[in-house]
Amino acid sequence: MILSQITELVAICAKKGIEHVILSPGSRCAPLTLAFSRHPEIHTRTISDERSAAFIALGMAQELEKPVALVCTSGSAALNYYPAIAEAFFQQVPLLILTADRPAEWIDQYDGQTIFQQEVYGKHVKESFQFPNHIQGEDDLWHAARISNEAINLAKKFPAGPVHINIPLKEPFYPQPSEEIIFPENPRVIKLSKSSVTLTEDTFSNLKNILSTVQNLLIVPGQQKSDPTLQGLLDQLSIQQNAVIMTDSISNLQSDQTITFHDHWLGNENLSQKLSPDLIITFGKSIISKSLKLFLRKSGAKHWHFQENGEAKDTFQNLTQILPVSPQNFLAWLSKNLRPQNPEFHHSWHSLEKTVSLSLPAVLSEVEFGEYGALNDVLKKIPPFSKIHVANSMAVRYLNFLGKRNPEVRCNRGTSGIDGSNSTAVGCTFTTKDLVTLITGDLAFFYDRNAFWHNYAMPNLRIIILNNHAGGIFRMIDGPKNQPELEEYFETKQKLTAQHLATEYGFFYVKVNSKTELDAALTDFFAPGIHPKILEIESQSPKNAEILKEVKEKIKQILEN
Amino acid sequence: MILSQITELVAICAKKGIEHVILSPGSRCAPLTLAFSRHPEIHTRTISDERSAAFIALGMAQELEKPVALVCTSGSAALNYYPAIAEAFFQQVPLLILTADRPAEWIDQYDGQTIFQQEVYGKHVKESFQFPNHIQGEDDLWHAARISNEAINLAKKFPAGPVHINIPLKEPFYPQPSEEIIFPENPRVIKLSKSSVTLTEDTFSNLKNILSTVQNLLIVPGQQKSDPTLQGLLDQLSIQQNAVIMTDSISNLQSDQTITFHDHWLGNENLSQKLSPDLIITFGKSIISKSLKLFLRKSGAKHWHFQENGEAKDTFQNLTQILPVSPQNFLAWLSKNLRPQNPEFHHSWHSLEKTVSLSLPAVLSEVEFGEYGALNDVLKKIPPFSKIHVANSMAVRYLNFLGKRNPEVRCNRGTSGIDGSNSTAVGCTFTTKDLVTLITGDLAFFYDRNAFWHNYAMPNLRIIILNNHAGGIFRMIDGPKNQPELEEYFETKQKLTAQHLATEYGFFYVKVNSKTELDAALTDFFAPGIHPKILEIESQSPKNAEILKEVKEKIKQILEN
Repeated sequence: MILSQITELVAICAKKGIEHVILSPGSRCAPLTLAFSRHPEIHTRTISDERSAAFIALGMAQELEKPVALVCTSGSAALNYYPAIAEAFFQQVPLLILTADRPAEWIDQYDGQTIFQQEVYGKHVKESFQFPNHIQGEDDLWHAARISNEAINLAKKFPAGPVHINIPLKEPFYPQPSEEIIFPENPRVIKLSKSSVTLTEDTFSNLKNILSTVQNLLIVPGQQKSDPTLQGLLDQLSIQQNAVIMTDSISNLQSDQTITFHDHWLGNENLSQKLSPDLIITFGKSIISKSLKLFLRKSGAKHWHFQENGEAKDTFQNLTQILPVSPQNFLAWLSKNLRPQNPEFHHSWHSLEKTVSLSLPAVLSEVEFGEYGALNDVLKKIPPFSKIHVANSMAVRYLNFLGKRNPEVRCNRGTSGIDGSNSTAVGCTFTTKDLVTLITGDLAFFYDRNAFWHNYAMPNLRIIILNNHAGGIFRMIDGPKNQPELEEYFETKQKLTAQHLATEYGFFYVKVNSKTELDAALTDFFAPGIHPKILEIESQSPKNAEILKEVKEKIKQILEN
Repeated sequence: MILSQITELVAICAKKGIEHVILSPGSRCAPLTLAFSRHPEIHTRTISDERSAAFIALGMAQELEKPVALVCTSGSAALNYYPAIAEAFFQQVPLLILTADRPAEWIDQYDGQTIFQQEVYGKHVKESFQFPNHIQGEDDLWHAARISNEAINLAKKFPAGPVHINIPLKEPFYPQPSEEIIFPENPRVIKLSKSSVTLTEDTFSNLKNILSTVQNLLIVPGQQKSDPTLQGLLDQLSIQQNAVIMTDSISNLQSDQTITFHDHWLGNENLSQKLSPDLIITFGKSIISKSLKLFLRKSGAKHWHFQENGEAKDTFQNLTQILPVSPQNFLAWLSKNLRPQNPEFHHSWHSLEKTVSLSLPAVLSEVEFGEYGALNDVLKKIPPFSKIHVANSMAVRYLNFLGKRNPEVRCNRGTSGIDGSNSTAVGCTFTTKDLVTLITGDLAFFYDRNAFWHNYAMPNLRIIILNNHAGGIFRMIDGPKNQPELEEYFETKQKLTAQHLATEYGFFYVKVNSKTELDAALTDFFAPGIHPKILEIESQSPKNAEILKEVKEKIKQILEN
């Protein structure tokens, strides 16, 4: 028989909007596996490598904006979830992590698949709950149901994030062959109402006074999903020259009104003189650009951060004001209460943006074949309805160098690891029929190759691999490129191409080494297909480093003239 | 420049016998990478997937019986180590885990590759140290050096295990191109002397009194490495009929004098009547056999456990006496102070052992081709000087069904996960020129395929894959085999063979589907070669389940007659 605390947990999940569960095989978790897979309103998939399973759940929850549940057996299975859980925590993606466990009395007694699971995710979950060790009666059932509600409410509540329930289970794990699993029709459900946070009138009037003295206002949205309302408000602020809006590709708020090429001139003292803000206003999560971070730190400008729960990071080392207010509320207020700023400030930023925007394509068309130019060509062909998943390290940096993107961009910038980007993209394909285009380097790609080790179709997956047979980023940065250990210990040269992997899984595969081959490959790469498609762009790491330097130098010359 | 706390840490490692370091690429960890790779007495290797890196270090430390150091960059890299760290903790294998981190003031401020690394391994390390955030002077250097000593001493001290040092580092990470790294000639070293623990005279005389009343003594060694002294003492106890010695394959103490086939009759009430012990004495770590555990729990016998540090698990639910004494000391005393026991007890166990030992080969030769019989054939051909690595789930169980093994057997029974067994075997090949034979199922094999993703030769690696395209164990146990979800959610059918992987890495590969093919393949599979060799034994999961049942039934009939 399946225990009633488990059937009620599953029924509560369904009532509270959890529609997708990623299971991994195991015996201790069998009651959860069976209950979830037999619930009529819940869709389950099974993924054997828990590291990938958790990133797949993350990729789904990113899109769905509601919790996806994870179920694993006891022992090290739970530890393999951890990289994705930390990513979900810092990226504020809701996950409900259900780990089966032995009852407390059997922990650390040399029984198989037993570790210390209680609170095993430390500070990287919003909370870690422990289900009752044994169910003795109604109080224990109420306890379990209350935990289930608390956990799901907490995962969804702003800022969303992963929540863990550790579930001790003892045998029998399986129902009788003919036994039906009965779910409670009316499980205990505790609903959490939506709320809206805004500032007091006093605060608003105080802020208005301060803003009346501001001449050079920069607004910097951090990582978030696209939002037409926010985009409209930001564009309006820019059009009225009320603020300069700086947008990394992961902000998903790039437009013709926002600055997107800042990496090309920030760090250049000659060009940065008229760019200094006197106030920085941020919302959302992290930004990619290191040069932007350094520029803002150096500016000495005051820094306001607004978001619902009144928490903020001091990324630029001069955080002065935390505004607990929703972005929609605050930007709407701002659009009505800002006067036009110093026109020279606005002009300086936008003239640099315009110059790079006009000259970069020509500069890229002149350089030799390499990943920078190739990625530019690929991006032009990605259909606007494709979601772009981009791996960390050079892939996301190139993307940021290349300016405005219309498609939604996802990148695991919570922990900025190279692990899990394939799986996150795979998770995304499970939520949409739109194309999902993953742009990745070879190290990130092979690190997470088990993302594809399952039996689910992903016809809408397109993978662009920038294969330089190494962690090419280490040749781009000053320190390691001059060390004798560069190739072995930093780049860690690796020989693989994706060809064998593609054959193994039946993926379409094409490899290109030149612009001509790339153009030919791109003619129908994004056309519909039955299987995932891989486009591998092979290039030489030293050549890529030269090209990066050459482009930087040429753009510098253009901007300085 | 490389900071002096880092060069001293590395010099202390060398002085204290750490000869091997597994590095993973990163920039924050560059000072550690460079210092370790340039130290003349330390051998470094680099592995890109940190999950594999840590299991490889584990596989090395298992053999070397001294700590292997791990170095990774900040962020989720450290989390990918976790499965192997938990395994090392419960298997008591010494590891020194060095994680580079941002300085404390930059944690959780939206900077890349930053998580909460302090104490991130929770209860699964013996201790977690934090290097000084900044080095201001001699006191901070002394603090760092003291931590380095404490950590290595603790990792080695019985019971050995993983110890973590989190190391905040700020730029610059790299020396100048021409700069030489100078290691201190006399780093601060705190030596820990060896000690020997024995019991007081009073305790010994008290134990002797109790033992005089014992008739049916079972000695059950748990997982450990082979030890000729212990083996000699145990064999002598058995020859003199002073005790019955029960040995799982992972005890590495199997001999003609010990019981090895117990899984074939334990659980059968008809056969177990004369087998009940009145005292169980254990040492070492876990045992595999679930039927043995259940039998011992049910026996109600008192249970003594002896080991140096006076800690013991109550695996059989009747632990009565913990003896803080080294196995050598205690077994030597026991061999002089035990009288012969009930001869019928000894005879009952050994006659069952003899019957199975004589009849199992014939029974196996009669069944159809499947993984059980195939593994038996393989084991006969494994050269005695090969170390055997065996994956969890069915592989280790089959091995245990098949009786005495002369070669050393390693299995990750600390957490008993299916993760990491390839990598652990790879680590073993880095420590020996002897053959290393990995026996694994398909799920464990593909789970950990990144074990091979590096540039180091492993000519002595042999891999036997029992590929039933599923987690076949779920068809062997009663609960899941009757569920409609068996194939999708428990076995999790998977289609891969190792052929593509072998081509990708240039491994020798042969696949067999019949006894004839197997015999042909085995003729020179264990002969020397330049590359690793894979022998894939393909079989059908339902057929394997039938064979297991058939063999069990036939042996039962033989034993009951």
